[in-house]
Amino acid sequence: MLRARFNLWIEKDGEVVISFWRARLLRAIDRTGSITAAAAEMNVPYRRAWERLHEMESSLEYKLLETEVGGSSGGGAHLTPAGRALLEHFEAFAEGFDKQVEARFTQNFPDE
Amino acid sequence: MLRARFNLWIEKDGEVVISFWRARLLRAIDRTGSITAAAAEMNVPYRRAWERLHEMESSLEYKLLETEVGGSSGGGAHLTPAGRALLEHFEAFAEGFDKQVEARFTQNFPDE
Repeated sequence: MLRARFNLWIEKDGEVVISFWRARLLRAIDRTGSITAAAAEMNVPYRRAWERLHEMESSLEYKLLETEVGGSSGGGAHLTPAGRALLEHFEAFAEGFDKQVEARFTQNFPDE
Repeated sequence: MLRARFNLWIEKDGEVVISFWRARLLRAIDRTGSITAAAAEMNVPYRRAWERLHEMESSLEYKLLETEVGGSSGGGAHLTPAGRALLEHFEAFAEGFDKQVEARFTQNFPDE
């Protein structure tokens, strides 16, 4: 049985600045308030998550996260307004693409 | 400046059976009548092209190409009816997707 697959992402100067994976990472940070917790949810090492975030900020030339060090909660992270805007723009951009791809697939691969 | 990017492909049992790259390869074989000429057009070694074609046929469990060995033309390759159908279904499936992605991008990243 055949299945249609797709991917969508946004680049700046040839570097990925947001993708489905990176949007899920930002959303998980937003929900958990922690890069560590978000990385664990995504099943990647903290370092991998941190590197991707750093790459994104570096390409975009603005901060996606505010981080707090220490305190009783052991520090945390939350999205900056610009980080939230990027995430929401990407989510709106990607919204419903899966259904469009599926509809096109059904239409063009009628025997599947 | 941000740019939207996308990819589309078809899988069977988790293996890629056709993608933009593979569709271009089949189209080049169709036009040139030769895997060697098509691989040269795609700037890949013959072996890479042959391996991808072999993987596709192996996953699909049908032949995409008929190959002729020798003769005055030194052999050649052409698409089977099933190979042509797969290619045309994929091209129809993918047709216009670039414009849809671009329209959604413009709509959702208004400052770009």
